[in-house]
Amino acid sequence: MADGDIGRLIVACPDRHGIVAAIATSLAEAGANIITSDQHSTNPEGGTFFLRMEFHLAGLAERRAALDERLARVAEDLQLRWRVSAATERKRVAVFVSRSDHCLLELLWRWRRGELDMDVVAVISNHPDHEQEVSRFGVPYHHVPVTAESKARAEERQLELLAGKVDLVVLARYMQVLSPPFLEAVGAPVINIHHSFLPAFVGADPYLRAYERGVKLIGATAHYATEELDAGPIIEQDVARVSHRHEPAVLARIGGEIERLVLARAVGWHLDDRVIVHGNRTIVF
Amino acid sequence: MADGDIGRLIVACPDRHGIVAAIATSLAEAGANIITSDQHSTNPEGGTFFLRMEFHLAGLAERRAALDERLARVAEDLQLRWRVSAATERKRVAVFVSRSDHCLLELLWRWRRGELDMDVVAVISNHPDHEQEVSRFGVPYHHVPVTAESKARAEERQLELLAGKVDLVVLARYMQVLSPPFLEAVGAPVINIHHSFLPAFVGADPYLRAYERGVKLIGATAHYATEELDAGPIIEQDVARVSHRHEPAVLARIGGEIERLVLARAVGWHLDDRVIVHGNRTIVF
Amino acid sequence: MADGDIGRLIVACPDRHGIVAAIATSLAEAGANIITSDQHSTNPEGGTFFLRMEFHLAGLAERRAALDERLARVAEDLQLRWRVSAATERKRVAVFVSRSDHCLLELLWRWRRGELDMDVVAVISNHPDHEQEVSRFGVPYHHVPVTAESKARAEERQLELLAGKVDLVVLARYMQVLSPPFLEAVGAPVINIHHSFLPAFVGADPYLRAYERGVKLIGATAHYATEELDAGPIIEQDVARVSHRHEPAVLARIGGEIERLVLARAVGWHLDDRVIVHGNRTIVF
Amino acid sequence: MADGDIGRLIVACPDRHGIVAAIATSLAEAGANIITSDQHSTNPEGGTFFLRMEFHLAGLAERRAALDERLARVAEDLQLRWRVSAATERKRVAVFVSRSDHCLLELLWRWRRGELDMDVVAVISNHPDHEQEVSRFGVPYHHVPVTAESKARAEERQLELLAGKVDLVVLARYMQVLSPPFLEAVGAPVINIHHSFLPAFVGADPYLRAYERGVKLIGATAHYATEELDAGPIIEQDVARVSHRHEPAVLARIGGEIERLVLARAVGWHLDDRVIVHGNRTIVF
Repeated sequence: MADGDIGRLIVACPDRHGIVAAIATSLAEAGANIITSDQHSTNPEGGTFFLRMEFHLAGLAERRAALDERLARVAEDLQLRWRVSAATERKRVAVFVSRSDHCLLELLWRWRRGELDMDVVAVISNHPDHEQEVSRFGVPYHHVPVTAESKARAEERQLELLAGKVDLVVLARYMQVLSPPFLEAVGAPVINIHHSFLPAFVGADPYLRAYERGVKLIGATAHYATEELDAGPIIEQDVARVSHRHEPAVLARIGGEIERLVLARAVGWHLDDRVIVHGNRTIVF
Repeated sequence: MADGDIGRLIVACPDRHGIVAAIATSLAEAGANIITSDQHSTNPEGGTFFLRMEFHLAGLAERRAALDERLARVAEDLQLRWRVSAATERKRVAVFVSRSDHCLLELLWRWRRGELDMDVVAVISNHPDHEQEVSRFGVPYHHVPVTAESKARAEERQLELLAGKVDLVVLARYMQVLSPPFLEAVGAPVINIHHSFLPAFVGADPYLRAYERGVKLIGATAHYATEELDAGPIIEQDVARVSHRHEPAVLARIGGEIERLVLARAVGWHLDDRVIVHGNRTIVF
Repeated sequence: MADGDIGRLIVACPDRHGIVAAIATSLAEAGANIITSDQHSTNPEGGTFFLRMEFHLAGLAERRAALDERLARVAEDLQLRWRVSAATERKRVAVFVSRSDHCLLELLWRWRRGELDMDVVAVISNHPDHEQEVSRFGVPYHHVPVTAESKARAEERQLELLAGKVDLVVLARYMQVLSPPFLEAVGAPVINIHHSFLPAFVGADPYLRAYERGVKLIGATAHYATEELDAGPIIEQDVARVSHRHEPAVLARIGGEIERLVLARAVGWHLDDRVIVHGNRTIVF
Repeated sequence: MADGDIGRLIVACPDRHGIVAAIATSLAEAGANIITSDQHSTNPEGGTFFLRMEFHLAGLAERRAALDERLARVAEDLQLRWRVSAATERKRVAVFVSRSDHCLLELLWRWRRGELDMDVVAVISNHPDHEQEVSRFGVPYHHVPVTAESKARAEERQLELLAGKVDLVVLARYMQVLSPPFLEAVGAPVINIHHSFLPAFVGADPYLRAYERGVKLIGATAHYATEELDAGPIIEQDVARVSHRHEPAVLARIGGEIERLVLARAVGWHLDDRVIVHGNRTIVF
């Protein structure tokens, strides 16, 4: 099977009788073979229905228009929101980072190994530290300093750098809060890694606060950034066991492992169109 | 939605074009609404396709025959092996146990709480120990002693007790090896809990051998029993962290927790028709 | 080694030079052999030092007084708070429970199997539901109904039942908040199991709120009850993975497994004198 | 506290009365303050006793000889094997690697971040692939090709490169089996990462065999290399959940994450003198 012949169909609609039959029939008539299929209904009576199918269609590029036409007809009948993408359409990604490089390197390294299907188009940092490291991956590095006074201008500069060029922004331990106007203007989803098991320890210094509270597990949370800090839809979380022996600096080191893995998983799922936002929750297929 | 109107369709067949469309259309035409659907193909080109759907069909009992007829027609066209069951058809289960009661009690207690959809029709043990405990759950307790000499006769007695009365046998820490003729004659799948992370420590005394090998995690494995000891298809496994401080007796205690959870999950999935055996592997939907 | 000859020494004191040498020498001179030893210092310069030793002393009962005398001398020199107990001194435990029996039964089962070194002296519930079940374990069951109006009287009744008779109270999913005066009067530590990964979801209905927040892991927390609800020192926590497919009722069922294990571990460690409270944190040896 | 004033004492000896008292007294008399202490006895009556202490001794470098003298006296009395090291004495480490870079880079990143207290003195590979990457870390890269015929000569070359220069060899997915003579001649412990949950899947292609066996968890094991392949003392293990959906290539990718973390933990503990080998098992303090 050629990668170029693999497509993904994402559907969201009011749940009702016959959706799967109509879609599967459309695909079959278009010559497509369903490879994987996941679906979820928040409530079979009156809820919302979500579907993700991967399918194989020999000559997808040429036959895409005909497929879209078929699906459009079904969609109109059933009031579907839908979207088809080819598995080979890579999302363009910008990574924001501050001083800590562990999440950044994890993403770049997985990308180089072919584990993350994306084009990294820019790394933006409020520090100059990672320029050399990033350049070795062939990625432009933009140092945009941020202070309390310069923040608005810095965000303008960041928006210029990104305008029309990205499908996803990843905050890989970027320690500046992005303003609501920025989030609105950026025109792409933003995934953040928060260094706690949300909703515990929203805000600053979660490892210090975890230490003070004496928790026995620490965690990390990858979520879509929204206007309200650390309150957006959660994509993935994980935890590690800690004890009274671990001071805040050690918690931060142990947590760093979790942050890397959680962020890499969340970004990978997003790139593969596996994450659907529904209200403040996510469906992850 | 009435529970009695919920059905499950399990399908296994050579993978080919149009299966989902044909089945979903059949269900839709029969008036059924698909609630959940999981599918897996070992290889979209020439592999085996597996499907599990839960659907709602108002008046399932009365309309079952018509549905079956439709599906039979599709099945013939596409060479499907298939099976429909109503969610309310409870499987009849016999539990085998020796001295340790932890797995037995876990199953009985979850059953009483309504977490396991089954009818426990018998507990069979080579020891008399649990008679009183089991009787309080309203389940017949059969003490069938087993010695090296009496084993064949004991198995005959067990088969008499079970003949035509069970859909599933669960070995909840039953420390006797069942003979191949027994497994053939019993006429129902047999789920065993093995107290190691298979394929490590096949056979006797796994906790002692785990201790001697100095592993840092111990585990438990629920699998279908087959002629070859501890080699049948694995349904579920889990592990717990241990250290040099834990002697074999402590490993057994920690492992007991894992055994209980792993067996309860495996039995629950089997009861819900979520487990499909394919060669020596399982698909768990 | 006879169990009766095994003792435990717990020490807490300002950290300073020579503590271990002084204590170990005292024990050695008293004829005791140290079996296990754990220690922790919050800060070797000016912090607090904690020690837990298990030791063997042939004829402990008879030689206890002499040992205590030696230790008292060391303690005076070094300003130690200390406590020796024999491993065979079982703590007297009362369990409080409401409708859900899973945590209660987990404790009673483990106790019967010899996994928890305690004497269960009473089960107290605001519901009559578990009387028969509990009586089979040979434990008195006290039904003390609680309403908003009767709460003060109910707590008086509970205190009468417990006065001078318990070393530990375990809230095994007891859904009433105990008042500060009760906690002060009861004269024994109180361990509670909270059905969330604290400090997330303090208060009522944590599973519903976990569902609404869309977390990907749910958890449970065993902690000492203090005046401020769900804010006491944490003894143990654990989590389980969940997904968009799990509705609040399913989260509660999955969480129930975690609650049982977390509470049983915390109670076991407390019974073995492994948990030391320091401010709002615990040291767990 | 200056890092240079922190020492570690490792002791192994037949268990007997008074060891801790004697050692702690020696340290106290030498002016050292014990910071952390861990001990383990395989059996308080006739077993082996292990101890690891971290202590602070102002002016350790100058007072080391006097401390050693004191300890030597105690050691003679009690038949102790013992060893003191300063926390600042960094072990010299050589890393062996084949094609996969994930374990190598994990170690180099952590080293650069100051998370692994070592000097990486060489990377040796049977492939030229990682030369540029490694050189950026300022580490010499030696390409030593290995074929069936050249293996003996290759090992000679490796031994020349390492002779007298390393305290630890790490096999970071080095896919050649080292011969017993090499292991004997190298004069330093060798830590290997095996890509399975040992003792399951000893030998080649563990992910393929895990797939074929249908396990539900895959794992990785860091162990000391010994003459018998994959049978040496285990330092650390961990697992990840997998399902029927994961083909061998995906298992290898998921497993790679576990390999990285498990190896990094094992190496870190070894560097901190936390791992003691006892027969074919390890004590990890």
